[in-house]
Amino acid sequence: MRMAELSRVTGVPVATIKYYLREGLLPRGEVTTSPNQARYGQEHVRRLALVRSLVEVGGLSIAAVRAVLAAIDDPAVPLHDTLGLTIDAADAPAPAVDDPLHAAAAARLDAIVAERGWRLSPDPLARRAAIDVLATMQRVTGDRLTGLADVYAEAAERIAEADLDTVTAVEDPETRVETALVGTVLGERLLAALRRLAQEHVSAQRFPPPSRETPCPPPPDPSRP
Amino acid sequence: MRMAELSRVTGVPVATIKYYLREGLLPRGEVTTSPNQARYGQEHVRRLALVRSLVEVGGLSIAAVRAVLAAIDDPAVPLHDTLGLTIDAADAPAPAVDDPLHAAAAARLDAIVAERGWRLSPDPLARRAAIDVLATMQRVTGDRLTGLADVYAEAAERIAEADLDTVTAVEDPETRVETALVGTVLGERLLAALRRLAQEHVSAQRFPPPSRETPCPPPPDPSRP
Repeated sequence: MRMAELSRVTGVPVATIKYYLREGLLPRGEVTTSPNQARYGQEHVRRLALVRSLVEVGGLSIAAVRAVLAAIDDPAVPLHDTLGLTIDAADAPAPAVDDPLHAAAAARLDAIVAERGWRLSPDPLARRAAIDVLATMQRVTGDRLTGLADVYAEAAERIAEADLDTVTAVEDPETRVETALVGTVLGERLLAALRRLAQEHVSAQRFPPPSRETPCPPPPDPSRP
Repeated sequence: MRMAELSRVTGVPVATIKYYLREGLLPRGEVTTSPNQARYGQEHVRRLALVRSLVEVGGLSIAAVRAVLAAIDDPAVPLHDTLGLTIDAADAPAPAVDDPLHAAAAARLDAIVAERGWRLSPDPLARRAAIDVLATMQRVTGDRLTGLADVYAEAAERIAEADLDTVTAVEDPETRVETALVGTVLGERLLAALRRLAQEHVSAQRFPPPSRETPCPPPPDPSRP
């Protein structure tokens, strides 16, 4: 198909497709005899859907998407490395800060990791991100929030098991990596949104809102006139 | 204290403090007899730490921080509304899309909400965000990932209970809202980072990395020469 049809099929504007081509996020189409009339196939449809989800919904940078796609496309990169790269590319790297708050946060995190028996690579980006958050929580709210890390780590492990169950069930290697990638990036958004909804529910239970309308109309009460 | 000392105490550069003052994220200091020499107190130190954590680590926009601070500072806003506003302000609003994928995603989400007995306000931003993620997952990977939503919702509820336990334990109302706010925004980052670490651990268990160095040196083996 030509670019106009690729745009129609995928719902991605032509200008965006051209941008992804320029940025190397989408392979060039097959050149035809007519100049400026490359042909695109199903692999372009699929790749466009992936890129769009990572950029638009996942919020990944163009550079992060490029790094991840390069790893997916390189058969020499073993699956575990691709997953690791996926995971790292989706993280905004936190600066390595060297102060007492960060040192204490690192000790707290490492204790949790050790207690759960997690075996990790030497210094994954996510470790630095977690340390940065814990140090900031401590700075702003003292000890009040940092104790949540244990509950979160336990939940995170259950979630990761489910994530990997899903990934492992996919047989085709390319689809598997794609599933891992989308699951990591979008799953984070899903989890955050569900936590907000759950917070609203639990918060409304504990602090009943007197001024708010009830979300659903009450069932009809037969004892009422 | 003067602005220079406020900067020293908080570690926030003077230019950033002036920016926050201009943007209304920090109340003006007490005006002194000497012009251009406002005085700042402990409430400025505290507010600066809060703003900085929301902007720098939480990634909130200036407008979102301003909305949340206005609610914190308004005694007429009940606590539950402040928490709701906190939760909404921290969300990037997802567009309300009207297509079959989003309709199916909305039905799936509402079924989960109903099954868990969550009582929510009519259309919280987080609901739209979750629907958008589910629709995108479906578009890119078909049914493979959407089944995770049940596991995530269960984990989210346990996390929200812990979050609210922490918040409820704080007696001072202002500190309580501050704790809820920081916990919501930074907790999301913490959870995402811990999920990544847990994924690395589980992934390494299931797809052993042959080429990678072992994270820790093996213990000495006495049977070896």
